[in-house]
This record gives sequence, C-alpha cells and structure tokens, in this order.
Amino acid sequence: MIKPRTPPGVMELLPHDQIAFQRLLDTIRRNFERFGFLPVETPVMELSEVLLTKSGGETERQVYFVQSTGALNKTEGGSGEGMPELALRFDLTVPLARYVAEHEHELAFPFRRYQMQRVYRGERAQRGRFREFYQCDIDVIGKDALSIRFDAELPAVIHAVFSELNIGAFTIQLNNRKLMRGFFEALGIADGEQQALVLREVDKLDKRGEGHVRDTLVDEFGLADDVVARILEFVKVRSTSHADAIAKLDALGGGSEVLREGVQELREVLELVHALGVPESAYALNFSIARGLDYYTGTVYETTLNDYPQIGSICSGGRYENLASHYTKSKLPGVGISIGLTRLFWQLREAGLLDTAQSTVQVLVTQMDAAHLPHCLAVASELRHGGFNTEVVMEPSKLGKQFKYADRAGIRFVVVLGEDEIAKDTVTVKDLRREDQFEVARSELSKTLRVELAQAQALPQG
Amino acid sequence: MIKPRTPPGVMELLPHDQIAFQRLLDTIRRNFERFGFLPVETPVMELSEVLLTKSGGETERQVYFVQSTGALNKTEGGSGEGMPELALRFDLTVPLARYVAEHEHELAFPFRRYQMQRVYRGERAQRGRFREFYQCDIDVIGKDALSIRFDAELPAVIHAVFSELNIGAFTIQLNNRKLMRGFFEALGIADGEQQALVLREVDKLDKRGEGHVRDTLVDEFGLADDVVARILEFVKVRSTSHADAIAKLDALGGGSEVLREGVQELREVLELVHALGVPESAYALNFSIARGLDYYTGTVYETTLNDYPQIGSICSGGRYENLASHYTKSKLPGVGISIGLTRLFWQLREAGLLDTAQSTVQVLVTQMDAAHLPHCLAVASELRHGGFNTEVVMEPSKLGKQFKYADRAGIRFVVVLGEDEIAKDTVTVKDLRREDQFEVARSELSKTLRVELAQAQALPQG
Repeated sequence: MIKPRTPPGVMELLPHDQIAFQRLLDTIRRNFERFGFLPVETPVMELSEVLLTKSGGETERQVYFVQSTGALNKTEGGSGEGMPELALRFDLTVPLARYVAEHEHELAFPFRRYQMQRVYRGERAQRGRFREFYQCDIDVIGKDALSIRFDAELPAVIHAVFSELNIGAFTIQLNNRKLMRGFFEALGIADGEQQALVLREVDKLDKRGEGHVRDTLVDEFGLADDVVARILEFVKVRSTSHADAIAKLDALGGGSEVLREGVQELREVLELVHALGVPESAYALNFSIARGLDYYTGTVYETTLNDYPQIGSICSGGRYENLASHYTKSKLPGVGISIGLTRLFWQLREAGLLDTAQSTVQVLVTQMDAAHLPHCLAVASELRHGGFNTEVVMEPSKLGKQFKYADRAGIRFVVVLGEDEIAKDTVTVKDLRREDQFEVARSELSKTLRVELAQAQALPQG
Repeated sequence: MIKPRTPPGVMELLPHDQIAFQRLLDTIRRNFERFGFLPVETPVMELSEVLLTKSGGETERQVYFVQSTGALNKTEGGSGEGMPELALRFDLTVPLARYVAEHEHELAFPFRRYQMQRVYRGERAQRGRFREFYQCDIDVIGKDALSIRFDAELPAVIHAVFSELNIGAFTIQLNNRKLMRGFFEALGIADGEQQALVLREVDKLDKRGEGHVRDTLVDEFGLADDVVARILEFVKVRSTSHADAIAKLDALGGGSEVLREGVQELREVLELVHALGVPESAYALNFSIARGLDYYTGTVYETTLNDYPQIGSICSGGRYENLASHYTKSKLPGVGISIGLTRLFWQLREAGLLDTAQSTVQVLVTQMDAAHLPHCLAVASELRHGGFNTEVVMEPSKLGKQFKYADRAGIRFVVVLGEDEIAKDTVTVKDLRREDQFEVARSELSKTLRVELAQAQALPQG
C-alpha cells in the first residue's frame, strides 16, 4: 500500500476551493478577452537550449528538467552528458518570446495575447511559496515599434479584472523607468547598476525605517546628505487624484531629455487611463515602483489591495524594449502584466476574502421512490436544457439526508417530486438560500428558477 | 541566436486555432458542469512512487521524469540512485485514484468529478500522435458500492457534449463486460486472457476481413468452426433502435448468471439513457466493444462519428471495480469516460469540421484621427461594459487598412467614429458578416449590437 500524497510545494484543492479558483480564472479570462486579447497556450516543456538562453541566473538554478525513461537510461549508461533536452517553463515570458519569434510571419502586429497556464520553479518549499503555480499574463507586442498608448490599456484591464473579482479596493500604481533614470542621473548616479542598488536599499524603507536607510545611503554608498534627502523625498511621491498626478509630474520641471521623455510618457498614459473610464481612486503615481531593472525600460505597474498592503503587489508588469532578441533579429518591443494566481488565491483565502461556499451545481433533483427515477431524470433533463447545472440523486435514501447533502454541497435549489407532484405534473422547489419553498408547474420550472436567480442578482450583496 | 522551436510531439496553435480549441474546452466543461460534476485539478508532477504503482508496463516506459537542477547535480555526482523523485502524469485516472484516496474523508460520495488537463507520454513521435495532450474526464466514484444507474448518466453527458460541439452525427456504442464474459464462458473460453486474445483478433475484422480472422481463430486458437461462427455472429450485433436493443438483449436468453447480470445491467442502463432524453439514433448496442480488458468490469462505452468512422472512438470509458486499491483499503468502484481532446481537435481540423474563422474579439473601434482617441476609448469602454469583447485601434493608420485587419482577424463589427459621428454623438457600425452598415446613437450601441447578435443566432446555420 502506497501513501497517497502530492509532492511538496504544490497547491491541490478540494472541489469547493477549486470552484472558487475556477471562478477567478474565468473572471480574469473574460476580462482579458473583453479587451481584445487573444488566447495562446504553449507546451509545458520547452527545449532546454531554447528555454535557458542566459545561464547562471537564479531562475536557471530553479529549473525542472524533464527526461523520458529512455533518455534517463541513456544518461545512466554514461553516454548522456550535460543538460537534459527538455525543461519545464518557469514563466510565460520566455515561451511568449519563443512563440512570437517562431510564428512571427503568421501573427498580426501589434500582437495582443493572453496566456493563463501553470509554470514551474524548484524553489525552496515554504508556506505560501509554490513550485507549481498559475500565471495569468497579457502582453502587447509591436513589430519595430509600439505606441506608448498601449501602456494605458493595461491599467484599464487590471481595473476591470479586480473590480469584478470583488476582493476590495485596490490601487494601480504607476511609474516610469525613464523618469527614474533621469532623476538619478541628475543627482550624479548615472550607473544603472548603482541606481538598482540604491533602489533596493530604498525598498527597505518600510521595514528598516528612514533613519537606517538614510545612514546606509550616506555611509555605504557615499552619497551626499542632500542627495539622499532628495532621493527619499522622490520615492515618497504618491498622487491622490488624477489632477494631482499630472501636477506632480509637472512639478518635476524640465530636467534631462530622458526625464522629460519619462514625464511625457507617464502623462500620456495617465490621460488615456482616465479616458478609458478608470476611476481616479483606482490609480496613482508611485515613484518608488521600479520592478525588474534589467528588463523594464518605460512604464511600470504594481497593484496593491488598499486594506491588505502586506499581500504586496497582486498584478505587476511594464514596458520592455525587446522581447525576443535571443531568437530573432526583429525588434519586438512590448508591454505586459502578470497575475500570479496560485499565490494570490492562497493569500485571498488566508485573508478570508473568497467565497468558497457555492457549488457549480445549482439544482438537486431528489428521489423519493426508486420507481420515480425515470420521471426525475426527465425533469433533470429539462432543467439542463434550461441551462441549469443539475444533479440527480441516483441512489434512493431518506429525503432528509438528500436535503442535508444539498445544503452541505452548497446547492441552492432542491426539487422534490412526490406522488402528488407527479400526478399534478408539478414540482416542489425548496430554495435553501432564501429558505422558502414553492410549487410550480413542471413546464414552468426553468423559467421560474431563472426569475429567482435574476432577483437574487438584483439584490444588494452581503 | 537560438532557433525558436517547440519540442517534437507537442501541438502548439496559432491564436485562431487556439480560439477554436478553447471553444471545445468550454463546451465540454459547460456540459460536464450541467450534469453536476465538480472540477478537480491535480499537479502535473506526482511523486514517482505514487504514480508508478505497477512496473514494467507500456505506460511506465513512456513516463517523463522530472528533476530540479539540484537533484540533477546530485545524480551526476553519483550519490543519486534509481528513479527520480518526480514524474509527469500520463493520464488523469491515476491522479484521480491518488486524489480520492488522499482526500477520502473530505469528499462526499458518490463523488462526481471532472478534470480537464494535459497529460504526458514519451511516445514515438509521429503524425497525429502527441506527447503532451489534453484529456477531459468525468468519473463517478462510489464508496463500497455504486449503483448501475450512474452508468446511464454518462451517455447523456456524451450526447450533450457532442451535440453542442456540432461536429456531425455520432453514435454512443454500449456493451457490458459481464455479458461478454458470460457469452465466452458458455463457449468454453473461460480464461480472461484467452478472451482478450480472441477479442483482439476479432478487432481486426475490418482490416483483415472475415476469412482471415476466421482462419486465425480456428488454426491458431484451436477453436471449433461452430464456436468461431457464433463469435463472429455475436460481435457483429448492433441495435438499430431502442426497442431493437432491448429485443437483442432478450434474444440472448438465459445463460449463465454472469451473462444474465450483464444483460440486466445493460437493459437498465438503456432504459435510463432513454429516460434521460437521449434520442434513440444516438446510442446503440455494439457487442464488439471491449476496451481495456484488465480494467473495465461492466458497462463499456465508445463513441464514433457516423460519417468519419476512420477517426475511431472520440470518447470512451466504462465501469471499473475498484479505483484506488494501491492507495487505500476502501473499495471505490467507479464509472467514467475520457475525451482525448488534443488528438480529437487535430482530427477534426484535418477533416475540416472546425470553424477557426471567428475571433473572440467582437468589435473593432477604428481611429480616424489621433485627436479622437480619448473618444474612441470611451466608446470602447461602453462596449466592454455592455459585454462586448472590443479592441481599439491604438496607432493611427488608413481606415481601409483597419477594415482589412478586422476582416482578416475575424472580427465581426467595425465601429467608425468620424468628425460627423462625434458631433452628432452617434457611431457608424459596419457588420462584416452581414455586409451591411448602419448609424446608431452612441447610447444605443450595445443594445443594438445585442439585437444583431441575437438575430444572427436565431437564423439557421450555414
């Protein structure tokens, strides 16, 4: 007998949690499609040499390699050397780069794609970290060039997704790498590497306190007191409204060309985000947002839940110069965002922000007498044709037990078909949510339930 | 520069094909849920010792093993011995067994689950065979026992799925292993192994012809002429209607207990399939259907497209005695079916049975002048709130080019916003499918498009 268990570091859900998870996936996908993004799926396995174009990074150390039994035997025999031929994707960006480069001449540019699949990282197992997790990504890829205007669409998508997910107020925080670069260069910190180190230090403001960060920047980085003061002032900039954001950009003044370019880009993005109907309360400037410094080159985004800042960014991304330089000479600039859904689900569940009580099953047709089963099945069939997810009790048991089952399973409507109902061609419906009960002609059943559902949706939530 | 390419044996789709594939997945899922099945997803990686409970089989030779960089280095250093710790699932049945055994005390039985995920087999690469492919499975698992009635639900699910997929007429073929066993035992072929060999031979009827099969059964299997004649007559049995199916079962007469049990089960299944509203034309007895002889013990199913018999079974399954004997002492009988969707998609596309022309994007909002962009974005925002998947042209270009793009992309509605329209607060809509054009008040846009779509759906297809 072998103990049934999953490997460490994966998240496997019981059906009710899986339903809640699927609801998140569906909502995200619906909104990605609403904004005109097209679906792409890539194989979980890529050729190692294609996947691992740079070597030695943190990511590469976490890669899972794949070998068929045949390949494995060869390796054990000593004839196989070096890296296995196949590896599991560790993100959706490298597969996107490979996909776009491979299918470049079959795609229409700007190419708008979404991809929602699992990725794999051999991280150290710990609470809330996963070795297998869903990423939900959208990217717009241009050929040669891509207008800054596309950078404005992504906050609108983020807003649509998280509004509908209904997990509380959130803020989409925007910044621009050019603006940051211009600011730092003006302070004499021209080296990208050093900017990165300074920003990493500044990132510890919340944890270590301003005094500690200030001392480090002066003592270890050798920055002048007034430079450090200006940095700390800069990274604390947050806007409180659309007008305030524009005013804060204007306040940065002229400066270098790269600074002016960053300001101009951010201004255009903000104006178009506004035009797209994203409410002012949902977005803000945040000059401390940097993201991956070696990758993003313009707009950067992070999104946080206002009441759960400790969760960190729930959706991040930005603008990059060139997607696929390892695979093609074509210049493919892009802008994208990513939601790490497995971790987000885990965090939302921990915070009690998920409804995991409702089943996908909407109606249970009970069975009072085995002889009635054909009748029960016919009624179930009508309900299914009417669009209702319907389960039939197939094995006879006490009616009370059947009700208890529906209640525990989160099934809202229970249909009872006794001798009486069958004779009159009616059904009795018990609504477990509203705790009432009614009898209705069998031919009116689906219509009546649709009305009940519509009423429930029209009622205020909570 | 590295050549961007996928490993051999995987199916990667361009967006339009991916949309068609996603439509299949959605339709299958919707129907699985319609019948009250609950979603389950399991990790792609299982512990090797959990996944590979039997050894030496064909399946095991095709397993992909997974190793993190760390584990790989250990192996190369010589300290690692034997099988890697992790492996990719090769079907959804073993993970289901592990899942049910692991979560036995948290699940309600009969447990009705669906699972639609990719599985991995290191098969020899050849046209139409895949190393990574989707399986879409449903199973009902009982604790200790599971009524035969559940076997009747699955044909109803199959019927709902393939009717909605709209890929032509199909027949769900039913048989019962007990009935077969009884028949063979009566002929003196009592050994299960030998029954299997005979059936495998009989399976070659279409390819090799009756004469060849008859000779083999007489010469190589040493069966008497009259026994062979009865076998060949038996396996040719097909019913032509519900009444005919019942009559053909009755015609089998008394026979042994196991034969009578098989007949009784099949009769009950047929009666309930009928009660579930599955049309008679969609199901039939087929006494040649056997499936995996070491696994299935009662009802067995295969489904074929009437006009494309060469595609083979598009959905198969059956009843099994005990799901998870390797993991638990509990007896868990079940019944299930599986659709191998990647191969099916490939076959349907080859046969020209798939519509891959329609985009998920329903509306393209064009841009005539860069100054109009905020207006275009606002209209797009209204369309999205109205439930339409909408793309906006973000980079100005000639209007003709924008129309051509919509046409090629399979986007049905194109919205034009010129000076005129903006002044009057109207929009001009061009319907590329119906090839007409109309002007409508901006406030009426979503409502009007909804009506257009509803009309299109009400029209006969083709």
